[in-house]
Amino acid sequence: MVKDQDIQKLKGFREFLPGEMIARRKIFDSMRKVAEKFGFREIGTPSLEPMELFMIKSGEELVQQTYSFKDKGGREVTLIPEETPTRARMVKENKDVPKPIKWFSESKFWRYESTQRGRLREFYQFNYDIFGEGSVEADAEIIAVAVEMLKELGLEKAAEIRINDRRILESILSTYGIKQSMVEVLNIIDDKEKMSQKEFLNELVDAGLSKKESKIVNKVTELSGNFEDVMPELEELVPDSDDSIEAYKRLLKLKELLDSYDVLDNCVIDLSIIRGLAYYTGMVFEIFDTEGDLRALCGGGRYDDLIETLGGEKTPAVGFAPGDAVIELLMKRENLWPEEEVETDVYVLNVSESVKRKSLEVAKSLRDQDLRVEVDLSGRNFGNQMGYANRINTKKLVIVGERDLEKGEVTVKDMVSGEEEQVDLKSLEGYFQ
Amino acid sequence: MVKDQDIQKLKGFREFLPGEMIARRKIFDSMRKVAEKFGFREIGTPSLEPMELFMIKSGEELVQQTYSFKDKGGREVTLIPEETPTRARMVKENKDVPKPIKWFSESKFWRYESTQRGRLREFYQFNYDIFGEGSVEADAEIIAVAVEMLKELGLEKAAEIRINDRRILESILSTYGIKQSMVEVLNIIDDKEKMSQKEFLNELVDAGLSKKESKIVNKVTELSGNFEDVMPELEELVPDSDDSIEAYKRLLKLKELLDSYDVLDNCVIDLSIIRGLAYYTGMVFEIFDTEGDLRALCGGGRYDDLIETLGGEKTPAVGFAPGDAVIELLMKRENLWPEEEVETDVYVLNVSESVKRKSLEVAKSLRDQDLRVEVDLSGRNFGNQMGYANRINTKKLVIVGERDLEKGEVTVKDMVSGEEEQVDLKSLEGYFQ
Repeated sequence: MVKDQDIQKLKGFREFLPGEMIARRKIFDSMRKVAEKFGFREIGTPSLEPMELFMIKSGEELVQQTYSFKDKGGREVTLIPEETPTRARMVKENKDVPKPIKWFSESKFWRYESTQRGRLREFYQFNYDIFGEGSVEADAEIIAVAVEMLKELGLEKAAEIRINDRRILESILSTYGIKQSMVEVLNIIDDKEKMSQKEFLNELVDAGLSKKESKIVNKVTELSGNFEDVMPELEELVPDSDDSIEAYKRLLKLKELLDSYDVLDNCVIDLSIIRGLAYYTGMVFEIFDTEGDLRALCGGGRYDDLIETLGGEKTPAVGFAPGDAVIELLMKRENLWPEEEVETDVYVLNVSESVKRKSLEVAKSLRDQDLRVEVDLSGRNFGNQMGYANRINTKKLVIVGERDLEKGEVTVKDMVSGEEEQVDLKSLEGYFQ
Repeated sequence: MVKDQDIQKLKGFREFLPGEMIARRKIFDSMRKVAEKFGFREIGTPSLEPMELFMIKSGEELVQQTYSFKDKGGREVTLIPEETPTRARMVKENKDVPKPIKWFSESKFWRYESTQRGRLREFYQFNYDIFGEGSVEADAEIIAVAVEMLKELGLEKAAEIRINDRRILESILSTYGIKQSMVEVLNIIDDKEKMSQKEFLNELVDAGLSKKESKIVNKVTELSGNFEDVMPELEELVPDSDDSIEAYKRLLKLKELLDSYDVLDNCVIDLSIIRGLAYYTGMVFEIFDTEGDLRALCGGGRYDDLIETLGGEKTPAVGFAPGDAVIELLMKRENLWPEEEVETDVYVLNVSESVKRKSLEVAKSLRDQDLRVEVDLSGRNFGNQMGYANRINTKKLVIVGERDLEKGEVTVKDMVSGEEEQVDLKSLEGYFQ
């Protein structure tokens, strides 16, 4: 049996003291508030699922990067690395929910990956999804939610939404003869930001493209900037096929809607945004800090085939999922992280053992008004109670003493100004409102 | 690769739709509110820990009832079945936090056990603990928190706190010569509520007690009722040793404090309450529904040796941990479970495509006032928008139409009364406050 030794927490896992938790709770509450304003409803999901649920969407390779194991009943199970497959099952099993279905959740996720700055093995993530609606209006609303989240966190200047439509990119590349190695080329584009331009061109040539084609891919994926500037440039590149023109028109409509939502200034077009290849079918986006020195804050996009792949009816879907790790890095860099400070509204100090009972009654009456109230539990004297009250950041002290009580009074001391006041016990309940 | 098949969630795991989540969130908010009123601070803990962290406290046998496995790095890890060992580590590693330390958390836990009514494999639990304070005042405050929780949930009549002090029970049993088989006897008492009286007596005889001794144990553990009635009976039984008398006096003091906290009526003494043998050192309690047909809602007590056992400094501790499962059963039985109903404050209905932009602007201005607002994402006509608005429980409809807009107005319809009113766009922002 192990004893007396230090058992540390696992690498890539975090524990939070009250101050850290107060800041974190504020962030989470902001993200919740945004969801609610747009009519998203909270759902709750299991943290452990049959492993095969993730095999369908992600394949064996990605499942390697999860916490998967055989449970004591011999079932292969996985600590959820994401929530989409679970949501797909819930959509499928609840056919009578009116569409569009707008769901959000605040969940923990786990991935067995090497830890880096902003990448942990256990992390929190909000998931926002709209199911059952394939329109560009739904795309625009998801982006509006993302911008509103940035605004709630004060990050609307420090970060921006980088948007692409994969169908446009693919059709442009096809027109230039890049067809057979499309998947490989998209993968290379997805890694573009990690490479120098020379490396990028070399990778494309290695994938079988001519030097000329590589340069075209480079040029196309360099295309980024605000909608006003980029749309005309893009129009010239869009091939003369029905699909491409439709995708381009949809992007124009998206621009117009984002303007109506008053979020267009927070968005740019960026033809290098791919979001991996797994399952996105149209519009994709990522949120980056404008200085570009952090990983993406989060990403999202449209995935219209996934629910069907997972065994449900064909159901269009669009969503995004901000995690807590990179948001925390960015907010701290921008000095926007909430103060990590615990507070107590009132400490009820008893001057002597004889007034203990009365002090507990006073504490109770204040708690009944939803104030955060502490009392002495340790039999401390006046000075030590005062010291503790100070250390737990008490705003007001209610001092219960025998002589005051004889007059039916207590002393209220403001811990910031130091001012003291005699207050009638009967009017104490109203005093703090 | 698996396709097109039904992958169900695991047995003993739950998923929650928005209605269920709204009710659940209310319960959790109540439990959070109680913690805050008493000055408890929220902490956050990892869901996965090194397995040996649980071996120390619970031993190999209990670890068998957990989700434990080797991670991809070969580490033996466990999905947390409880939070106390993690908290013990946090107390140990943060020596400068002022004592008493009062922590709460809202966490998920996992146990690999056979599922029953009110016992699941994945469940939520609030943990409330006071560390660094061994006084009876801390015991009383923890019980006061538990009663306040019942009151917040409306369960103060439907459930009660059953309190014991294990030192008193042990000293009484010792006096009657029951010493060598004490652990076994306590185990049998712990299971008493699951047995008939005859079974109980037989088990005690099997454990080596004489028939007479068995009857004494039965009599002592039958002792239960309100403090006023039981304390005199108990006084007669308390052996004449310093330890026993001290424990008895502490119970008297607890009674007095519970009275000051105004929670005495919600508490009874019950000498059969043991709370397992693992680590409790003094006062223990369980919360039961007064009709007695459900499992315990939760339990708690004093555990003054555990932090030291886990490698920290000697640190007294008292706490309790209500889970969500039995509370839900009881609240539903008592018709106290919150309504599982989603609500939308405003649906902004656009009469035609031409006013779409305006309707999005109206929606934005209402969201800026923190209202929960939905708009059409599907290009639906008037009637279908009305139908959707109904299905998502909209309270007010804002109808944006061309003719109204020409006059700078919209129509506001109350979805309950059906009343309609023309409202100037400029005064719409104030209209819903």
